[in-house]
Formats: sequence, structure tokens, C-alpha cells
Amino acid sequence: MLERKLIEALHYIKKFKGKTFVIKFGGEILEDENVLDTVAEDLCLLHDIGIKLVVMHGAGTLISSNMRKFGLEPEFVRGERVTDEKTLELVISSLIRVNNKIVGNINKNNPIAIGLGGSVFRVRRKRKELGYVGEVIDVNSKLLSEIIESGYMPVIFPIGIDESGNSFNINADVVAGEVAKALNATKMIILTNVDGVLDRNGRLIKQLDIKSARELIKNEVVTGGMIPKLESGIRALSEGVERVHIVKAGEHAILGELLTKEGSGTMLLR
Amino acid sequence: MLERKLIEALHYIKKFKGKTFVIKFGGEILEDENVLDTVAEDLCLLHDIGIKLVVMHGAGTLISSNMRKFGLEPEFVRGERVTDEKTLELVISSLIRVNNKIVGNINKNNPIAIGLGGSVFRVRRKRKELGYVGEVIDVNSKLLSEIIESGYMPVIFPIGIDESGNSFNINADVVAGEVAKALNATKMIILTNVDGVLDRNGRLIKQLDIKSARELIKNEVVTGGMIPKLESGIRALSEGVERVHIVKAGEHAILGELLTKEGSGTMLLR
Amino acid sequence: MLERKLIEALHYIKKFKGKTFVIKFGGEILEDENVLDTVAEDLCLLHDIGIKLVVMHGAGTLISSNMRKFGLEPEFVRGERVTDEKTLELVISSLIRVNNKIVGNINKNNPIAIGLGGSVFRVRRKRKELGYVGEVIDVNSKLLSEIIESGYMPVIFPIGIDESGNSFNINADVVAGEVAKALNATKMIILTNVDGVLDRNGRLIKQLDIKSARELIKNEVVTGGMIPKLESGIRALSEGVERVHIVKAGEHAILGELLTKEGSGTMLLR
Amino acid sequence: MLERKLIEALHYIKKFKGKTFVIKFGGEILEDENVLDTVAEDLCLLHDIGIKLVVMHGAGTLISSNMRKFGLEPEFVRGERVTDEKTLELVISSLIRVNNKIVGNINKNNPIAIGLGGSVFRVRRKRKELGYVGEVIDVNSKLLSEIIESGYMPVIFPIGIDESGNSFNINADVVAGEVAKALNATKMIILTNVDGVLDRNGRLIKQLDIKSARELIKNEVVTGGMIPKLESGIRALSEGVERVHIVKAGEHAILGELLTKEGSGTMLLR
Amino acid sequence: MLERKLIEALHYIKKFKGKTFVIKFGGEILEDENVLDTVAEDLCLLHDIGIKLVVMHGAGTLISSNMRKFGLEPEFVRGERVTDEKTLELVISSLIRVNNKIVGNINKNNPIAIGLGGSVFRVRRKRKELGYVGEVIDVNSKLLSEIIESGYMPVIFPIGIDESGNSFNINADVVAGEVAKALNATKMIILTNVDGVLDRNGRLIKQLDIKSARELIKNEVVTGGMIPKLESGIRALSEGVERVHIVKAGEHAILGELLTKEGSGTMLLR
Amino acid sequence: MLERKLIEALHYIKKFKGKTFVIKFGGEILEDENVLDTVAEDLCLLHDIGIKLVVMHGAGTLISSNMRKFGLEPEFVRGERVTDEKTLELVISSLIRVNNKIVGNINKNNPIAIGLGGSVFRVRRKRKELGYVGEVIDVNSKLLSEIIESGYMPVIFPIGIDESGNSFNINADVVAGEVAKALNATKMIILTNVDGVLDRNGRLIKQLDIKSARELIKNEVVTGGMIPKLESGIRALSEGVERVHIVKAGEHAILGELLTKEGSGTMLLR
Repeated sequence: MLERKLIEALHYIKKFKGKTFVIKFGGEILEDENVLDTVAEDLCLLHDIGIKLVVMHGAGTLISSNMRKFGLEPEFVRGERVTDEKTLELVISSLIRVNNKIVGNINKNNPIAIGLGGSVFRVRRKRKELGYVGEVIDVNSKLLSEIIESGYMPVIFPIGIDESGNSFNINADVVAGEVAKALNATKMIILTNVDGVLDRNGRLIKQLDIKSARELIKNEVVTGGMIPKLESGIRALSEGVERVHIVKAGEHAILGELLTKEGSGTMLLR
Repeated sequence: MLERKLIEALHYIKKFKGKTFVIKFGGEILEDENVLDTVAEDLCLLHDIGIKLVVMHGAGTLISSNMRKFGLEPEFVRGERVTDEKTLELVISSLIRVNNKIVGNINKNNPIAIGLGGSVFRVRRKRKELGYVGEVIDVNSKLLSEIIESGYMPVIFPIGIDESGNSFNINADVVAGEVAKALNATKMIILTNVDGVLDRNGRLIKQLDIKSARELIKNEVVTGGMIPKLESGIRALSEGVERVHIVKAGEHAILGELLTKEGSGTMLLR
Repeated sequence: MLERKLIEALHYIKKFKGKTFVIKFGGEILEDENVLDTVAEDLCLLHDIGIKLVVMHGAGTLISSNMRKFGLEPEFVRGERVTDEKTLELVISSLIRVNNKIVGNINKNNPIAIGLGGSVFRVRRKRKELGYVGEVIDVNSKLLSEIIESGYMPVIFPIGIDESGNSFNINADVVAGEVAKALNATKMIILTNVDGVLDRNGRLIKQLDIKSARELIKNEVVTGGMIPKLESGIRALSEGVERVHIVKAGEHAILGELLTKEGSGTMLLR
Repeated sequence: MLERKLIEALHYIKKFKGKTFVIKFGGEILEDENVLDTVAEDLCLLHDIGIKLVVMHGAGTLISSNMRKFGLEPEFVRGERVTDEKTLELVISSLIRVNNKIVGNINKNNPIAIGLGGSVFRVRRKRKELGYVGEVIDVNSKLLSEIIESGYMPVIFPIGIDESGNSFNINADVVAGEVAKALNATKMIILTNVDGVLDRNGRLIKQLDIKSARELIKNEVVTGGMIPKLESGIRALSEGVERVHIVKAGEHAILGELLTKEGSGTMLLR
Repeated sequence: MLERKLIEALHYIKKFKGKTFVIKFGGEILEDENVLDTVAEDLCLLHDIGIKLVVMHGAGTLISSNMRKFGLEPEFVRGERVTDEKTLELVISSLIRVNNKIVGNINKNNPIAIGLGGSVFRVRRKRKELGYVGEVIDVNSKLLSEIIESGYMPVIFPIGIDESGNSFNINADVVAGEVAKALNATKMIILTNVDGVLDRNGRLIKQLDIKSARELIKNEVVTGGMIPKLESGIRALSEGVERVHIVKAGEHAILGELLTKEGSGTMLLR
Repeated sequence: MLERKLIEALHYIKKFKGKTFVIKFGGEILEDENVLDTVAEDLCLLHDIGIKLVVMHGAGTLISSNMRKFGLEPEFVRGERVTDEKTLELVISSLIRVNNKIVGNINKNNPIAIGLGGSVFRVRRKRKELGYVGEVIDVNSKLLSEIIESGYMPVIFPIGIDESGNSFNINADVVAGEVAKALNATKMIILTNVDGVLDRNGRLIKQLDIKSARELIKNEVVTGGMIPKLESGIRALSEGVERVHIVKAGEHAILGELLTKEGSGTMLLR
């Protein structure tokens, strides 16, 4: 039976070679050192067998906790963080620290990860009341492609620059979709801390099309942090990504999802 | 006479083509938007005629002013900033904002600047009492070289990563020297807000060897912010850089210094 | 646990990429269509993930049974087939039919297998009493390398040509070792119809060095057809091959042996 | 006058450089060692001056004489050999021995000839009553081209493989035409043991178009073994070959035919 | 202000890199050694910064003075030199001596100049009464391009060859236009001994379109040697050259004209 | 027998492919249009089969006859032409007309010949009393090699340039040897109007070593114009050329000499 599994895996390896996958780190997994370690190992293996990877992340709850350390109270308008000048400082520093953490873990063995942000995204202010929140005008896909083709793995934090050189906070989910589109990525893998999307009875849903995903949200089967993940996945599919996988980070579930037929998480398709 | 100048410039252009120059932004010039604009224009021109540029910067006084906004008081031990966790947040955010500002200015016309840091430097904690201050173990010169050879201009902020993925503040001057060495840079250009090194009578010194530079410091002819610049220049020379130029940022003094015989600032040599 | 296996496999894939392996078909497996089918699938997968393969084979019992069909009685002198002119006809035709069978199975999906022999080996008559039995003077490794580098998989039958253009039967085991040496192969995989080398109690021996292998033969723990396999393996090791694997053909045991830590057969090393 | 001849030859060399020629060995020339030697020398020279050669051959009368040695009686249906299992053994062995003979002669100086068959032709059973006689479904022209471009000279025997890996006898003349077509050969050279096509008075016909060739056959001016040669030539012309030459093997008549204006044999054209 | 000039120059350098310019030497400048020296220096600099240059010249008054030395009287029909056999000798020798002079001056530092003529131009006799005066049928632009791409600077004298291998005198102005067209030159620079085209009051005209240029000739504001220069310029513009510059040779006016906004001579455009 | 000749020729073609031959035109053959035509055809053929050719020539008696047309009397000092300014004019024009004649003949079919001189040779004045006679300081072999590698055939006239850009007459024989040396030519072919070197009885000497050649001169068996040819050949051999051939121009004797065993002229070797 093991050999059957190996054969399956080899077929997937052949199929994925040379393809570009966007890996999106859910905020909830960023604090667990062990998880980061396991994920880094998986990413290195995928990279080594010839898959082109781009890692995207936010900073999860670190921004808010950092704000509170400085006596600031997080404030959101329709899910988006109001980002005044002081908040921006902590958004940036939190993102960079997370970025360095991910880069550091990947580069332990082989220095292939490159932290990037800012120079990759040209943005403009989104809405005045949100402060320093930007919306992406342009992704420097030429730069990203060249770096990937040279064998490096960009690890991207969602900060952009406007035409005056000012820094802006941008939504990591939106950015992940834009990057996937700009690089013609065939897969987006969203890493989370649960097994995947669960049905009404708490059983893992292996495969899901856009329509069913929307119903799960509407019927409130899916709740909380899984909602933006599903929405981000739906958006990616509509921008040309072929498959979106929502997988548990840790326990090498990424490999289980990508290299076995049953997978280990939830696969979204059109 | 103009033609004579053009001929001189053309000879320098021939000579510098394909060479690598490290541009070090002094902290004092980072706040003046006009200066940044002029410098960006100069760097683009130098890049376009075939000189390979790497930009290095710190964050100048921005860190301290940002700290004070948050009610923190900067503290130094023998010239080095004590960097506790809270301070680190503001060090990082200030550096990134400066980085984005420089990148944004350069990229206005042609998106060639890439903000880099973290992934470029492997560091370890320097001295316990300094907190998150790191010393460089390794510069990823392979990555930098490939990016430069692809026609990009790295703009580097002095943050490094230790073996656990933690972020560390590193001294920008030291880093500039290490980068220059790692890339076999032939020139380092230190941008400041004065014309160059002045003698006892306030007259610009056009050319200076290491020995004389040390005497100027010892005899206190040179004081204040110019001291670390001279020291940084001396260190760069001792690590293989052939010429160090201390030049006024703005008024296109970089071009004047590099492309004319008289120069516009001070040139240091061994 | 599956994921652990996948990780192991991925590490082996990284390690074996670009290496050359010689696959030696034991005669006992050539008649079973299902086995050939499974082996062909395994070889294609190994080829697709970047391992360079050269297949070597004899004709097993087919020569003798073909001879008997034509009323000839096989005759051996110290283990080598006496090959008169009539016998040579049936040696050749049996080898080519086996070669075509293997090539045909591999090429079902992707026409990468190339039957080769004759032009690859320059030989001279070995001993007069053996008739048309040749010994190898030269292997055309340049030709083999170019064909392998172009992405093809040579399937080699042991017939050589002497300086007058006459055809000679050559010992497949000896030839396999010569080819492995000529191509700097790092592994030789000997396919058989049992699990591997068994100890006195009929249990599989996972790993074996040359000295122990020789004792197993001397003490008659190993008998019959396994003896020439072990000897062929020992010879290959002494000619520079790093590892020899004796594996069951079928049930994808090749993959099990190559891509898992426990392996599925017996590994010989120096 | 010699110089005039040299000039002519040089013009032909210029013209033929980089072109692909198919050389078809008539069965009647295979047994004469001296002839093979001379032909091999000619082919090496043509190869060395930059002509791409593919050699095709059958086994002539060797199959039948080998059959008789084993007490089998050759049987033909409308010119095609009935090939039962036993006959197939001797067809194969005879072809391989001839192949090795040709390869061996060519490779005496420079190992450029490669014996190929089986893996080159995908076939299916032609007609049940003929036994193991195949018809070509596909020629692996990609493989042949790469081998030729690498500087090798394929020497091809007419055995093909069906989808189950079984070996089949195929008609050498038909195969020659298919190979010529698959490789966009501009010339086919048919080697025989007479000077070329003779007219009613026994005089050599230097040039012949398809229509006249057909009349020669119809009017029984051409008889015996020359008929299939002419037919094979006509077929080759109709499949895109520009010129077919029927030339005596030996006495370097190939060079005489190709590199002089008068030629030494018969040239067929549309 | 100097820096402003340098920036301007750098912008022009960027713009002109990789472009082809035809440099036409007016006859009046050929005798002044100092001028040739300065021009050579300018051409080397333009070449070194990546502009592709082709130099064209006539022999000015040297032909006539050489003729008189040998007792021949120059004769012209509608502006064209009647070239009998004896005259042709002196036309050729004068052109070659000028060519060698220019080549020698350029090659003092770096042997990049190549004297060419004859083999570049296929011509036929123009009008019988003019003797050996040819008109160009074909420019060997493939040869010129390859030489330029290899980093050389052709210096071309206006002699052509007819189909019998005879030498012909050809009009240098016409030839310059043909060469510019054949090489897709974007600029033609006509070197003279005055500042450029002057208006009725003797003031330099900085810029001139075709229509105005024609009026200047018609109204006899422009007279003498400047007329053929203007006409040559107008012809070049009509054959695809984008800009024609009439500049004083010497005092590095070429650089002044090409690398500054005000220029130093007269620029013609459509 | 013809085929034997073809085989010989093909072996020579293989051997000479990619080699560089210097072709030296004796002055005596330059006036015969038919001869030039035949030689041009031979050179084109040699070029087309892959031999790299460089043609060298003088102007034979044309200079003197041209001088007389202008009333000048040729004057020689120890075999070298006294070249005052007026003589130089006619030396140059005669050489260029011969050069154009040769280039024109070669380029009739394929424009591969390039007239070169001047820019190829850096010279200095040889002896004051000889006037404008130069001796070669440097051959621009880099330029020549690049032009040859691009598939062109330089046709070189013996004029050089001194450091002031002045033109000088140089000895064609000496130049031919220098060029052969600079290009590592393996053969020099000297074209003349007799069959080769003749012995005392007027019979052609097929092969000659340096020692015997010197004796032939000393014993006055060889006289007149053949002496400088032999001396030029001896010099070439001593500068690294492997074989020197003295061959009749016309009747395609070049091909006869190069591509047949007997040759058609005289071969000199060390």
C-alpha cells in the first residue's frame, strides 16, 4: 500500500514541477514555533522538487497585541483596520518580525527565502477614514518572476508604497490573490490551524466548488476565521488560480494535501 | 570649457561602467523630500549608464522621534542604541518607512529599486545589555549579486535575523562596509548634508588619505556626525574599497563628485 | 505516518536527481507480463523525476527453450553457454525479443526507451571452445551518455561486434558492470523474483557488505540463481558503483527500495 | 580534366551539405565482405563532409539459408514472407547479424554507426495469414533526428514492436520509404550489384522519370530483383524524396554517382 | 550649473546608446591635423559610451592639388568630376591617403577603425562622358553591420566596383546617404569648418526644417560649400535619418552638439 | 580511377576544414582577366568547403607602367622601390585597382571578399633613402580573425599607416609572411604563371625542403621571379607555416595541388 502512495506522489510531483504555488499563512499559525518549523521543512521540500513557491503572510493578532503594549486600542471599520500613523508603525514592525521569523525558519538549511514588500506593490490610499490603508495599483511581477526563476522563494509582507514614497498597510488576502494572478499561479494553499472546512457535523469536506462554498457561508455552517479564508479562496479561483487548498499547517499536512489523492484538507475548485 | 567637462565625464563613465558602488545615506538627509528626489535622479542616471549601485541607509533621528511619540526615551551605550523589545518595534518601522521612501523615489520612473533586509544578513546577539542589537555573521552576497546582475538596485535596511528567526537591529555603517566587501565594491559614497570634510578654516578638503583623516579626528578638526562617517570610510578602505567619497546629497553633487576631476566633495583613499 | 514517508521519499528524490542507475533484469522475471508492466511503470516514474536509467537484460531461460524448439540441446562449460553458429542465432533472436518486450512496455506511454546492443560493445572471442562468446574490449560510453542526456533510456542487450563485424554473445552480468563503470553509475538495481537475499532462517537481510555477502555464498546460505546476482553486485561495487540493490520486480518494490528508509529488498555496500 | 571533375565534386559537396540521405542496402550485396568494406569507406567520407546518412537494410537471402539450416522451408504469399514463430527467430537473428556486420565495418575507424530497430517502429499485425509480419503505424523520427544531429549514423533493421511488446518482421523497402519521409530525406540511394537500370540493349540508363520507369517494368525490360528496387524508388519519390539513385555497391560507385555529373548509376526523378 | 549639464549629457547618452550615427567629414577639414586629432578623440568617446559610428569621407581639394602636381587640370560637368583613367589614379590615391590619415588618428589609442571601400559598393558607370564615375547599385550592409556589431568603426572611402572588377569614383555625399539608409542610422553628423548654418545676419541657426533649409538655398542666404551639405542633409532626412547635424569639427563641437540641449551647431529635421 | 581521385580529394577536404590558408598572388598573374576568373572560382570553392582564406597581393608591373604614363621613372635600391611622394600616389592607386579587381571577381556570385589594408598594418619608415617604404610593427590579427570567423575572405593590399597617419608602401612578400604568422595559417599558396619550381632539365619538382630550395637558388637553377617566391616561401616556413605551395594560377591548378596526392605544382616543407 505504501508503494501505491509513493506512485501517487510521484505522479503529483511530475504534474506540479515548474508550476507556481502561492502559500498563504493564516495569522493563527504564526505564533507556534513548532508549526513554523514543520511548514518551513515542507516548503523547502516542495521547492527542492521543482515547485515555484511564493509565500504571503499577514501578522495575525501580533499587531493588536503590540498596539496594546503601547497603549493603543485596535479599531476596525467593516473588517479593515483603521491605521493612523502610530498604528502604522506597529503594523509595519509586526509584519517585518513575522517575515523575518518565516524567512529565518526556511533559511536554516538553505538561504533561499527572500523577504520582500514595499517595492513589490504600488498602492494608493483606499479610503480617507481608514488612514494608511492602501489599495494595490500594480504588482511588480517582473521582479518577482526573475527572483523565482533564479531559484529564490519570495516571502512577501503586505506593505505598499504610494507615489510619494509613503508606506501603506494592505490587506494580505487581497494581495495574495493579486500576486497569484500576476504570476499565473496554478494553486493557492491557505495554511490554517484546523484540518480544513468542516460540514454541519464537524466532518472534513474534502472538495468544494464555489457555489457550495458560498452556501456554507450563507447558511452559517462556516463561521469565524474560516469565512475570510473561503472568500479569499473564491476570489483566487475567479482570478485564474485553478485550485485552492485550505490545509492545516503542521504535521506535514501540506505534503499530505498536495501529494496524495485523498488529500488532508479541503480543496476548492470552480 | 563645457566640452572639456563633457570629455572628462565621458572618460569617467567609461572607467566606472560595470563597477559596483555602495551608496550610504547619512541619516541627516532622509527627511528632506527635495534632497531625496535629487539623489534618486542621480542614482537612476548612474544606474542607466551602467554603474551597479547598492543603497544602504539607517533611519537617522526618525527612530528617536518615533520613540518619543510613544513615550519611550532613547538610550545609548557607547554610541549604540539600547534596543529592548519595544524599541525594536520602532527601529524596524522607522527603517522600513525610510526604505519605502527611498525606494518610492527611485521607482517613480523605472521600478528598479528593491527594498531588502533581514534575509540578507545572518546575525547573532552582540552584547546582552544592548538587547536586540545584532552583529553580522554572514551577508548573502550571492542573492545580492544576482539581483544586481538582473539590473535591479537593492536598497538595504540594517535588520538581520538570528538562527531562531528573531529580528535584530544592526549598525548601518558596519553593514555598509560588510556589503561593500562582499560585493567587491570599488567605491563607497557617503551622502551627507555638508559639502564634505572641512579643514580648520572651514575650507573643503578635496582629497584625504587614511593617516590624515585619523589626524583630523584626533586633533578635533573634524567633529560631530562627520566622525562616524570618516571612520566608516576608513573601515571601507581597509576592507578593499578603493575610494570613499563624502559628498553633499542634493544639487546633484554626486554627479559632480564622480564625473568631474575637481569633484564636489571629499575623496578618501589609502 | 504517511507524511513522514512522503518526506523520506522527497529527500531521496532530491538526492538521486541527475544520478545514473543501472537496472539489471534477472532472467527469471522476463516471462511474467504483469511484472514487466509494473517494472516499466516504476522505471518511467524514476525517469520522470530526473533519475538517469540504463536497463540491462539477458534472455533468461528463453534461449534454452527456443533451442529445444529447434531440436538443439543447450551446453555449458563452467557456467558459460557454448555458442556455436546455430546457437548464436537463437541467442540473438531471444535477446531481441526480450529487448523489444521491455522497450514496448516502457514506451506504451512515452517513447523514451531505445533498444541498443552490438554497436555499443566492441568485443573479441573469449575462448575458442565457447564458440561465439565474446569479451568486452570497449563500451561506447560517449554514445550512451549522449542518448541518456537527450532524455532517452537505453535498454541494452548483451551482443557485441568483433573487428570483422561478427556478432558475439556476451555475459549480461559482466556487461552490466562494465556499463555501470563506463557511465559512473552510482547504483545498480538487480531485479529478481524473490524479496532479496535471505538469511539461514529465511528472513530478508536488509543490508549486506561485501565480506558478509562472500560468507553467505561460502557457507551456502545463498544458493542457486542468487549466487551470480550477489557476485555481479560485488563486482559492480568493486568497479565504483556505490550501492547495489537486489529487489523483487513487481509490486513496485523498486520504489519501496529506493524511496524508503527501510527499503524493500537487500542493499549491498562496500 | 581532373580539375574539372574536382570542381564538379566540390559543387555537389556544397549542395549536399546538411542534407539527409537514406542509404538502402540491397540484399544481394550483403555477403561480399569487400563490397561492404568499400561501401563503409564511402559512407564515412560522405558523413565526414557533412551529409547526414541513415542506413537501411534487410537480410537478403540469409534468412532463407538460415531457415534451411534449421530444416524450415521459406514460404511466401504475394512476395511477402510468411513468418510463423520459428521463422521470426531466424528473421530477427539474420537481420541483427547483418546489422552488426554493417555497423562493424563502418565503425572500424570512427564509432559513428548505431544499430537501431524495434524501438524506432510502432507496428500492428498486417494480415493474419502472414503471421508475424507488421505494418508501420509510427516512426520515431524525433529519436532518429536527435541521434543524427549528434553526429551518429543510424543503421536500421526492419523489426517493429506492437502494443503488447511483440516483435514483428517488416518490409525493408516500405520502411526505407517511411524513414525517408519522416526525416525529410532529399535522396535515397539504393545499393545493388549491377551498374543500375539497363535498357533493352543492356546499356545503362543514366536518368529515368517515374513514367518511363513504370513502362520499363510493364514492358518487362526490367525484371527480377530490379523490379522491387524501382518500385521502392518510385514510392520514395512520391513521398517527397527528390532523387533516387540506383547504384552499384563497390568500386566507390556511390561517390561516382553523387559527386560527378555523369554519375555512375541510374538516377530516378519525378 | 555644471551638474545640470552633466545630467543633460547623461540623458542624451542613455538615449543614443546602441544607435547608429553616420559621421560625414566635409572635405575642408581634412587637412588640419589638429582638427582631425580632436575629432578622433570625440569619435572614440562616442564609440566607448556605446554609439555605433560609421565614418564617411571624400578627399576634398586634395584630388585637385594632386592632379596639378602631375600636370593634370581638374574638369567638372555640372558639379561632378570628369574622371578619366589618369584622374582616377589620383582620386583613388588621395582618398586612400585621407582614409589612412583618419584611421591612423582614431587608432592611436585603440585599433577600432577599419578603412573600407570598394568591397562595400557595387556600382555601374553613371554617364559615359564622366568617365570612371559610378552610381551605387548595392551597399553591402550585412558586412558593415557585422563589423559594427563586432565593435569596429568603419571609415569608408567612396570607391565602388563594377561587375568587371573595375574601380569607380563615387560621390561621397550620395554614398553617405545610402549608407545611412542601409544601416538605419538615426543621425547623420556633417563636420565642417564653420559653426553651422548661418542666417542673413551671420547668426547661427540652431534648428532648421527641410522647408526652411530649401528656402535658405533658394534665397541665397546659404552659399558655397554649405549648399551641398544642406542638400546632403535633406536627402538623408528623406531616406529615414531622423536628425542631421551640421557641426564645426574641432573644439569638441560634436560632443557639444550631441550631448547638450542648446547644441553647438545646426540641427536639421523634417 | 576517377573515384580514387574523389576519395583522395575528400580526405584532403576533411583535413583542411577549418584551417587557415594564405593565398599570395604573384604580380605576373594580375593582368590576365581569365586567370583571375579561374582563381576566383577556385577560392570560392575552397571557402565554401570550409577553408579559411586570406588573399595577399602586390600590384606587379602595374605600378611601373602607371608611373611611366605620368612620366616617372621607377627606381630601385637593392630590390626595393624608391617611393617618393609622387610614386606613392601611383603605388596606392595601382594596389587599390588590383584589389578591387580581385574582390570584384570573387564577389561576382557571393559578396564574401573584403578589401583591407592600411588599418591592418601599423608601420614605421624603413630607411630614409627609400622614402615612403614602411616596415611592419604590428598586424591587427584580432580584426582579421573576427572578419574571417564571420565568413568573410580578406583581400589585403600592402599599405600601412605610421603613428602620424601617413601611408607607406610595404613589401607584399614580407607582409604575407607576417599575416600567415599572425593568423597561425598552416599553408601559404603562392600563385604564379608557371607550373612550379623546375629542375635543371626543366622538369617540375613536386616536393622540396628548405635546404634543397636554398641550393637551387645558390646553383642558379632557379632564376628571375622565382627567387623571391622561394625566399618568401622559406621565410613563411620558418615562421610556422607548415607547407608552402608554388602553383600555376589558372587551369584550376590550385585545386589540383591541394586536393590530389600528386599535386600540380611544387610543395615546400621544412
